[in-house]
Amino acid sequence: MSFDRLIDKIVEMKNPTVAGLDPKLDFIPDYIKKAAFERYGETLNGAAEALYQFNKGLIDELCDIVPAVKPQCAYYEMYGWQGVRALYDTIEYAKSKGMFVITDGKRNDIGTTMQAYATAHLGEVQVANEKIAPFGADALTVNGYLGSDGINPLLDVCKLNDKGIFVLVKTSNKSSGELQDRAIGEYSSLYSLMGEMCENWGSDTIGKYGYSAVGAVVGATYPEQLNQLRKELPHTFFLVPGYGAQGGSADSVAPAFDKNGIGAVINSSRAIMCAYQKQECDEKDYAKAARKEALRMRDEINSAINK
Amino acid sequence: MSFDRLIDKIVEMKNPTVAGLDPKLDFIPDYIKKAAFERYGETLNGAAEALYQFNKGLIDELCDIVPAVKPQCAYYEMYGWQGVRALYDTIEYAKSKGMFVITDGKRNDIGTTMQAYATAHLGEVQVANEKIAPFGADALTVNGYLGSDGINPLLDVCKLNDKGIFVLVKTSNKSSGELQDRAIGEYSSLYSLMGEMCENWGSDTIGKYGYSAVGAVVGATYPEQLNQLRKELPHTFFLVPGYGAQGGSADSVAPAFDKNGIGAVINSSRAIMCAYQKQECDEKDYAKAARKEALRMRDEINSAINK
Repeated sequence: MSFDRLIDKIVEMKNPTVAGLDPKLDFIPDYIKKAAFERYGETLNGAAEALYQFNKGLIDELCDIVPAVKPQCAYYEMYGWQGVRALYDTIEYAKSKGMFVITDGKRNDIGTTMQAYATAHLGEVQVANEKIAPFGADALTVNGYLGSDGINPLLDVCKLNDKGIFVLVKTSNKSSGELQDRAIGEYSSLYSLMGEMCENWGSDTIGKYGYSAVGAVVGATYPEQLNQLRKELPHTFFLVPGYGAQGGSADSVAPAFDKNGIGAVINSSRAIMCAYQKQECDEKDYAKAARKEALRMRDEINSAINK
Repeated sequence: MSFDRLIDKIVEMKNPTVAGLDPKLDFIPDYIKKAAFERYGETLNGAAEALYQFNKGLIDELCDIVPAVKPQCAYYEMYGWQGVRALYDTIEYAKSKGMFVITDGKRNDIGTTMQAYATAHLGEVQVANEKIAPFGADALTVNGYLGSDGINPLLDVCKLNDKGIFVLVKTSNKSSGELQDRAIGEYSSLYSLMGEMCENWGSDTIGKYGYSAVGAVVGATYPEQLNQLRKELPHTFFLVPGYGAQGGSADSVAPAFDKNGIGAVINSSRAIMCAYQKQECDEKDYAKAARKEALRMRDEINSAINK
């Protein structure tokens, strides 16, 4: 009922990063796609098989050095229910290799509907006499626009199953300020208010590192806001996207960490998945290239934290 | 590239309502569950079969009197990828019966990731030499917290495929005011600002009825705000949840309509799906009970509009 399990892994591996698994077919080596299409045809089943094999190779090479993976739902839904089956298989495989799984779904709704999302991604559903984990991730990203009615149903599931959530606070994109940066009520910004709500929602789930089960998504592309929010939200663990491809540097993510060097996990998706393209190596070595990039990222971020 | 197709159906059927398909197992008659579990076991496959058969029965009884259905993703994801397959099958079946399908997913993300959601739910994905519609709905609900970067990728898909989106503006839940009612920047409320953004996002997709492809979700439980937003947003078509089970009445949804009696579609989920429980009829007549409730709702809302 906090992010202790994730932080334990981060401390043990000395690596505060998470590998994003956003497997578009364009990113996947031809030999994997060829084998998948030969087996299942140029169909959504073929695409789903390619997604899963690609992820499996990455997980095998990353599981001993990277504490967590973050599959992005959109890239699985794009390949239909067959792609969503590949999401399930990916989560299962990553967990079997000891990784912490953050499903990036930015889900949001209210009451019993939000409860259904919580059950889907973090809990267990009752089917006649059986209890079954539909997706079984360790954490889920969510959107708080609907207020407490959209978050409270998650807290019960988090407490019951030792899971966590990350609420969108200040996102990494260029236009995030259109709404999030504006002064609202007595608050200097909408993201500041959303951050305070995260502290409140998490207040009775604080774990041994001082962080609750309610984390926040704060983009690497806004280091000043990252710094401000780290100070304003002492019990809120951060998931930080936007490092690498979107322009965030190791120095820009350093403010996400507390004085003990914890408090955040930094995501990289494309730079890891597509490292083989940048390194210009044989596509069959895509997972080794990903490992190399993951190690480089780990060292770069650790250096920036310890500056 | 507007909501013309939906409005055509509403006008033709003289029925501005949509039936929500939120099939929890608890709502489904025992005889359907029994048959599904006998065939597939007490498994997610069994649950998914029950969901689909339940929906199919409803669609058969509703398709000639109700213009649209709104499946809520959460209730399908709750039964794993097998449940998501039932979502796909439900959409296919509803479309084959001529219904307009609004997938209620409240999806949100940025750039290529939002593009992936748009492709998933409203567009076509390229798989080698094939183009395939992963879910093929007519419209999708989305959350605008991330700003224009989260909406623009949808507009391209809407224009290309004649689809629409509904952006959360003022939601029907009790705590929606925690964020949405606060004054923000120079705006009297966050929902007012979000509404204005909908008008802007939709400005070059206005159809023959004067409404664009960018609609807004505005709850039936806040008739004053509904009235205010109808005036502020002349080109934004409304999806109105919260009628019935959540407490919204026919009179409280009347302000959602313009002087021509169009401009909105009112959702009812549980009152239609579970009508057989309220009417205390044989569970095998659940779909007939749903039809009866749908007709009652249609007449009640039309009376309120024409007052």
